[in-house]
Amino acid sequence: MIRSQLELEVRYYETDQMGIVHHSNYIRYFECGRSKLLVDLGLPIEQIEAAGIVFPVVSVNARYRQPAKMGDRLRIVSTVEKVPEGAKFPVKAEIYNQDGVLLCEGTVTLGFLDARRRIPVRCPEFIAEVFRRHEIGDE
Amino acid sequence: MIRSQLELEVRYYETDQMGIVHHSNYIRYFECGRSKLLVDLGLPIEQIEAAGIVFPVVSVNARYRQPAKMGDRLRIVSTVEKVPEGAKFPVKAEIYNQDGVLLCEGTVTLGFLDARRRIPVRCPEFIAEVFRRHEIGDE
Amino acid sequence: MIRSQLELEVRYYETDQMGIVHHSNYIRYFECGRSKLLVDLGLPIEQIEAAGIVFPVVSVNARYRQPAKMGDRLRIVSTVEKVPEGAKFPVKAEIYNQDGVLLCEGTVTLGFLDARRRIPVRCPEFIAEVFRRHEIGDE
Amino acid sequence: MIRSQLELEVRYYETDQMGIVHHSNYIRYFECGRSKLLVDLGLPIEQIEAAGIVFPVVSVNARYRQPAKMGDRLRIVSTVEKVPEGAKFPVKAEIYNQDGVLLCEGTVTLGFLDARRRIPVRCPEFIAEVFRRHEIGDE
Repeated sequence: MIRSQLELEVRYYETDQMGIVHHSNYIRYFECGRSKLLVDLGLPIEQIEAAGIVFPVVSVNARYRQPAKMGDRLRIVSTVEKVPEGAKFPVKAEIYNQDGVLLCEGTVTLGFLDARRRIPVRCPEFIAEVFRRHEIGDE
Repeated sequence: MIRSQLELEVRYYETDQMGIVHHSNYIRYFECGRSKLLVDLGLPIEQIEAAGIVFPVVSVNARYRQPAKMGDRLRIVSTVEKVPEGAKFPVKAEIYNQDGVLLCEGTVTLGFLDARRRIPVRCPEFIAEVFRRHEIGDE
Repeated sequence: MIRSQLELEVRYYETDQMGIVHHSNYIRYFECGRSKLLVDLGLPIEQIEAAGIVFPVVSVNARYRQPAKMGDRLRIVSTVEKVPEGAKFPVKAEIYNQDGVLLCEGTVTLGFLDARRRIPVRCPEFIAEVFRRHEIGDE
Repeated sequence: MIRSQLELEVRYYETDQMGIVHHSNYIRYFECGRSKLLVDLGLPIEQIEAAGIVFPVVSVNARYRQPAKMGDRLRIVSTVEKVPEGAKFPVKAEIYNQDGVLLCEGTVTLGFLDARRRIPVRCPEFIAEVFRRHEIGDE
């Protein structure tokens, strides 16, 4: 298992006229969490893209439990259950507020793509290797 | 079944450095489609909110098949399979480009909430009634 | 003078907890108006970029007069006062609601840039020529 | 003079197909900077709004000097030159990258508004007082 955490504050423009964070923004928070996970691994997105690999999102699901509000400080927990092998890999995401309340959880599945030919490729070995080095036991 | 269609153009700021529409924006397109469905029913969001009802998103899932690009003209098809009865109702969404290619599909489940007390309520009768009047046979 | 108009509806996610469209979104509406102006000229952004030219925004100013709200249908009027010659050109923008009330006005100045070398270039002749063909007298 | 700083990372969805942060997002970064300034003063937005005051943006101007990119860590410097007195007050903003390069600068002018009656009001004394307490000499 590989796990990463990111803290960020709700931004005013992310709220909507219901007075809560618009649901689409949690999908963006999930991505911020994944970027942080890659940085933690020493694999920033811009480096992977420089290697000719893009990994677009294949599917998303999210369940909204409690709304986030202006002033909230959120904690995004991103978890990769196992080292990616094939052309896809799922990342779990959970978002908590400053009181530890679970606001939203979901899974985003990414696919590895050759950037030039736009075809799916297996997880490049240099990426799998990095994941392997950072694997930790399940808590 | 109740069905609605909306056409909209990809906006430049919706693309990302992969050169395609960012995946979070399809979740927003889904919502544009739902707003259009409500307007088609004669039930604009601002009217429902004026009646003290909000209907936040409870869950989202989306599957991305082909990327949308700048210059694309999208068609969002929103479908409610049956008249809402309880406190939740799912809306299916499909997004096609100008060539009729399915780019993205998903389901967004909404919940009815009393705006002041923030508690779930059954679908208000005035809303269910409107859905019933607009129901059409399955195609 | 070259002028173009675009109509678009306020989207729910563009509102904020003040119950009005967030001010940053008018800057995005301005851009939608400019994209429409280019399409009207037969010069879609993706075609210009394919020619190796990008034209990033150099400066923006906007004055907010009345707020746009959910349910509003906006009209964006984009005006280029004269055919671009140098490396920059300003586009005026005005946004009106369905009642003809001026909500926001501003000017966005664009610069022409060689996409590969990232250096400013004079307005390419094929673009200036298109502007010339579409010039109309001042109203 | 009152001054505040905020650091934040570029988010992937903020980039566009030019490979740089979309210009509208700097307007949003400006706002993040202003929120931080208010938090530094002990005046979070949600507290001011709870007091029945909203302060919508009256005007914006921004000048873009160098593009921000994915991977950049930005520093937003927000400056209020003098304690607000009337119904409006300007906030200067500068955005630097991790190398200290000035990417964007501008000014956002806010207006104080009675939230219920939607009319301009002078800066409430409890806000002016807080600004006065935090005033520092010009550097």
